Amino acid sequence: MTGTSFGSDNHAGVHPDVLAAVVEANAGAVPAYGDDPVTAEAERILRQHFGASATSFVVFNGTGANVVGLQAMTRSFEGIICAESAHINVDECGAPEKLIGAKLVDVAAPGGKLTVDLVDAARWGIGDEHHVQAKVVSITQSTELGTVYSLEEIRALSGYAHEHGMYLHLDGARIANAAVSLGVDLGDLGAAVGVDVLSFGATKNGAMGVEAVVVLDPGLATSMRFLRKQSMQLASKMRFMSAQLVALLSDDLWRRNAAHANAMAVRLAAAVDGAPGVVVTDPVQANAVFALLDPAVTATLQQEFPFYVWNEATGQVRWMTSWATTEADVDVFAARIREVAGASS
Amino acid sequence: MTGTSFGSDNHAGVHPDVLAAVVEANAGAVPAYGDDPVTAEAERILRQHFGASATSFVVFNGTGANVVGLQAMTRSFEGIICAESAHINVDECGAPEKLIGAKLVDVAAPGGKLTVDLVDAARWGIGDEHHVQAKVVSITQSTELGTVYSLEEIRALSGYAHEHGMYLHLDGARIANAAVSLGVDLGDLGAAVGVDVLSFGATKNGAMGVEAVVVLDPGLATSMRFLRKQSMQLASKMRFMSAQLVALLSDDLWRRNAAHANAMAVRLAAAVDGAPGVVVTDPVQANAVFALLDPAVTATLQQEFPFYVWNEATGQVRWMTSWATTEADVDVFAARIREVAGASS
Amino acid sequence: MTGTSFGSDNHAGVHPDVLAAVVEANAGAVPAYGDDPVTAEAERILRQHFGASATSFVVFNGTGANVVGLQAMTRSFEGIICAESAHINVDECGAPEKLIGAKLVDVAAPGGKLTVDLVDAARWGIGDEHHVQAKVVSITQSTELGTVYSLEEIRALSGYAHEHGMYLHLDGARIANAAVSLGVDLGDLGAAVGVDVLSFGATKNGAMGVEAVVVLDPGLATSMRFLRKQSMQLASKMRFMSAQLVALLSDDLWRRNAAHANAMAVRLAAAVDGAPGVVVTDPVQANAVFALLDPAVTATLQQEFPFYVWNEATGQVRWMTSWATTEADVDVFAARIREVAGASS
Amino acid sequence: MTGTSFGSDNHAGVHPDVLAAVVEANAGAVPAYGDDPVTAEAERILRQHFGASATSFVVFNGTGANVVGLQAMTRSFEGIICAESAHINVDECGAPEKLIGAKLVDVAAPGGKLTVDLVDAARWGIGDEHHVQAKVVSITQSTELGTVYSLEEIRALSGYAHEHGMYLHLDGARIANAAVSLGVDLGDLGAAVGVDVLSFGATKNGAMGVEAVVVLDPGLATSMRFLRKQSMQLASKMRFMSAQLVALLSDDLWRRNAAHANAMAVRLAAAVDGAPGVVVTDPVQANAVFALLDPAVTATLQQEFPFYVWNEATGQVRWMTSWATTEADVDVFAARIREVAGASS
Repeated sequence: MTGTSFGSDNHAGVHPDVLAAVVEANAGAVPAYGDDPVTAEAERILRQHFGASATSFVVFNGTGANVVGLQAMTRSFEGIICAESAHINVDECGAPEKLIGAKLVDVAAPGGKLTVDLVDAARWGIGDEHHVQAKVVSITQSTELGTVYSLEEIRALSGYAHEHGMYLHLDGARIANAAVSLGVDLGDLGAAVGVDVLSFGATKNGAMGVEAVVVLDPGLATSMRFLRKQSMQLASKMRFMSAQLVALLSDDLWRRNAAHANAMAVRLAAAVDGAPGVVVTDPVQANAVFALLDPAVTATLQQEFPFYVWNEATGQVRWMTSWATTEADVDVFAARIREVAGASS
Repeated sequence: MTGTSFGSDNHAGVHPDVLAAVVEANAGAVPAYGDDPVTAEAERILRQHFGASATSFVVFNGTGANVVGLQAMTRSFEGIICAESAHINVDECGAPEKLIGAKLVDVAAPGGKLTVDLVDAARWGIGDEHHVQAKVVSITQSTELGTVYSLEEIRALSGYAHEHGMYLHLDGARIANAAVSLGVDLGDLGAAVGVDVLSFGATKNGAMGVEAVVVLDPGLATSMRFLRKQSMQLASKMRFMSAQLVALLSDDLWRRNAAHANAMAVRLAAAVDGAPGVVVTDPVQANAVFALLDPAVTATLQQEFPFYVWNEATGQVRWMTSWATTEADVDVFAARIREVAGASS
Repeated sequence: MTGTSFGSDNHAGVHPDVLAAVVEANAGAVPAYGDDPVTAEAERILRQHFGASATSFVVFNGTGANVVGLQAMTRSFEGIICAESAHINVDECGAPEKLIGAKLVDVAAPGGKLTVDLVDAARWGIGDEHHVQAKVVSITQSTELGTVYSLEEIRALSGYAHEHGMYLHLDGARIANAAVSLGVDLGDLGAAVGVDVLSFGATKNGAMGVEAVVVLDPGLATSMRFLRKQSMQLASKMRFMSAQLVALLSDDLWRRNAAHANAMAVRLAAAVDGAPGVVVTDPVQANAVFALLDPAVTATLQQEFPFYVWNEATGQVRWMTSWATTEADVDVFAARIREVAGASS
Repeated sequence: MTGTSFGSDNHAGVHPDVLAAVVEANAGAVPAYGDDPVTAEAERILRQHFGASATSFVVFNGTGANVVGLQAMTRSFEGIICAESAHINVDECGAPEKLIGAKLVDVAAPGGKLTVDLVDAARWGIGDEHHVQAKVVSITQSTELGTVYSLEEIRALSGYAHEHGMYLHLDGARIANAAVSLGVDLGDLGAAVGVDVLSFGATKNGAMGVEAVVVLDPGLATSMRFLRKQSMQLASKMRFMSAQLVALLSDDLWRRNAAHANAMAVRLAAAVDGAPGVVVTDPVQANAVFALLDPAVTATLQQEFPFYVWNEATGQVRWMTSWATTEADVDVFAARIREVAGASS
């Protein structure tokens, strides 16, 4: 493949500043497994962003971040309420069930967003030993459908969760895109709105491969080191992962990367929405555009540009942008979409 | 910490050629999750080393390599026979038990090496539903005690295993050190001696962080992609991990790195063995030296050089060397050991 | 509580012939764990009913029968497609997820019955390592909603399953009620219609507490003894459980008990359907009646007769009958329902 | 098989008083899953025996009792220290590992008895995330080798456990035999000596098939109902199991049964110990006799009397007695042992 990809934000490479930080970390011998100065710095910066109560644990990938975090909150007979479209429900090959032994209680959620009403309907059988006991609400921010929860929406969910003895988990594989979309800081999406544990996503934001579990409820932090290790998410030469976090979280690189990716999605949507044969289906609030295309149009376009069909039944496709997508990439792609879709409609 | 560490071979950084390969991999957009050209190249080279029947799966770390590989061979009611000192038994926080649900049947093994007699004594209750059914023999090469199985010893174990309907698993976190020690190629430690699945270790050999599960029995390969994903060991931007494998496995870099590390261990052992107050306890066949020291000597030395006490009860310590250890590092350390130990004896 | 219960068919006691068989089994010493003559006889009779390919494994309860049977068919990265209302999905506190580590893919199914179309829509992402791989279709016969699959419906599902490399599992907690409803033998609901493994329910049919996993695909039988033991479903003094199966399966006691229970449900439905304030919602094909009542009517009736509200939101209630329900029980209950519902409507 | 068995105390049938109680429980309809008056009575009597802080949970079998109880105390990254010979370690087909996901840390223990020194040596790596964190000490009373812990020995173990933030678990499959041997009440083996959770064994004491988890640390009780259900140990028609407990625990039937079984073991040991060719190897403190025989003698005897070889390597055999063993059974068996062993020596 040459050129750009609209298939996923992890098709992009590593931001040059992040790569430079990785290279720079390669100086001399340091202790392994996180007992090194670069990791200490990453943990310090994450605490700076997420508040004094935040404890962070560097892990390899998003699945790991989600499952290690959820394990700290959930026993095997408990349940995790999530959107049907949640990554933990459809894209982790059953890792949560295997590692936690618990049930995901999935809910059809328009735009990929849970609401208090949806959660309340899914929370039943409490006290009944025949039924899993709902213990966690897990949301994704930004969602798998490119939408973003408002601060009020998150607060409503955490309020409901805490009132009912539950936790709120946030899968932040694209938390940077959400923060930029809302015009807030990262910390505004954490303890400030009642989140108990979140997965901080760096890979899609321009890193090489690193995420962090950020534990905001200190009571949940004590078992985390053991859960991370037993879940096979503890890196030996951790400095090279931590260096990526330091690079992204310093000097607002995370924000610039996300702002760029979001802007590219808006640019793409603006360029094609309303064109003959193209219907953008969801609000473009982060770095994804969802649209309906004729399958023949999709097939033609996919020969030139990598992207995924989201829903075979409806013909819905997903276009992702990243920190690396250029305006020219978008313009070329949009022109070609208009051309192919127009010809067929 | 400045200077070197004798604490672990993963205290070292990344070999410059490996780092260069990582940097070079950062060109343009490519598909994620291993569907990229660098990963295809890594798989091709691994097949070149391990034979046409070999299928490889890139994973994050050694725990992941071991547990994903063992899962392909073991059902939950089966047992895995291993040395008491095996990394899977004492250093993975119960990850094998959690992920596989199976029992490790551990055996006191002199020098960290299983023998057919030891395995045979641990294999009992076959056909008795009250007892776990021994299904896998797992060995570490080189062992946790710095010793190396001969080809004959591995052949004897695989012969026994296959004769009894079992598999042979090889934890090769330091397989390069073993191959160099034996003067053989990597492939000589695989299918050629009856190994069914092995963990190929790159991190300790000079990589930044990558290992591979190499499946030599093709019948075991079909479920591997799913097991890797569900076990949270699938990287999104895999090219940056695969590039490390390509760098190490091309132009014999793996061999040069291991040969150097092994030579540094021999140099260290030669410099201190027999000195007053120092007893080297195990044959130095790879990149580790085990020795008995007076605890006070250990305490003094640890203030200057990082290394671990292996056995609190006996005062045994472990010194590891790596691709990055220099002759000068060794000489300075050895001189200091002789000085401190001599003064106290 | 005196008198009868319409709460569940396991509120009933033990049929006198079954109890007599249990008492009779208490003669002298016999080997434990199923190596006794009564268990051999139970296995023989089950084979007589289910065919020469059938191997049976006595277990404690329905959850155990389902989960042990499903384990023989499913690896942790695979999926089990079932109705949303399936007992394994909502009434086993997550036991399938915990013991198998796999995901239940649940489907909204009218009348609690899966169809080929529903299964086909739920089977996706095959070959995609990010998604659980659908491997088993699990149906309940008779269903949790008192309906019964026809032989043709089961054949269609097994045909679909086998064509796609999947298995068909049948939760037969009330298989006797289904067989009677269809006017067929037990064996007609097994291998004859393509079922691979079924849970044979005896407890609700008049036993004290025993079920059996009946494995119809011989290839699945070899691991069953170990799975049963590891899943904690192996009884030591098994003769007392096997004796119950022998009693029920000899002289058509199972059929008489089920026929009676079904008849009582029909009698109840006939007596109340169409009465003011009572709407029977589902076909009465086995031993359950589902009806809509005003919540105030339900509350009044529950003070006198035990039964459950099935759906708080709609006011739907469930009335179960059993081998022990008498015509007089039904008539008294029906009269009272008509009286209370009539007064309030 | 006719006559008696020295193979196991679960080869015996059900004590007539227990069977009568089961028959008597079969009156009318009662709620299922333990919400019945017989179960309430069983729980009341267990509390009477084990103290006001005791909460009891009826389960199917010993494996279930042990694993459900241990689950309440252990997270997956923690460890359970037990004797190498412990039933949970060698006779439950890996059920603890599968259900808890944790590691059993087994210790060679003379006479099957742990000591504080043995536990202390096995408890290491605390705080080190690479190593399982020892959390529970599990002992068996009476042990698998027919020996009995004194009250002081248990108190020493619970003292150590609690001092180190651990729990003490007691597998009481034969707790009645131990209590009789020590001349104490059941409650003297519970909270009084610092036990946190115990498995109360009834089946081997004369029941048909029932055990109970007795939770003595109230903080551990809250999750028990869910763990029991998810672990597939919740009976629907529980009254028939609870009736057995009520029968055994009333009027000291448990004590009479155990006293008789113990006396029969002593009688057997006295009759054969010192006879030519017979060496009793362990103190006979409960209802088991362990002895060394010539394998040819064993083979001849096994043709007439069921019993097990305990250790193939040494020729050690195990003879179990039960509530149902008669003096005549013992005398006939002992005479035959002397005869066969004498002839061969």
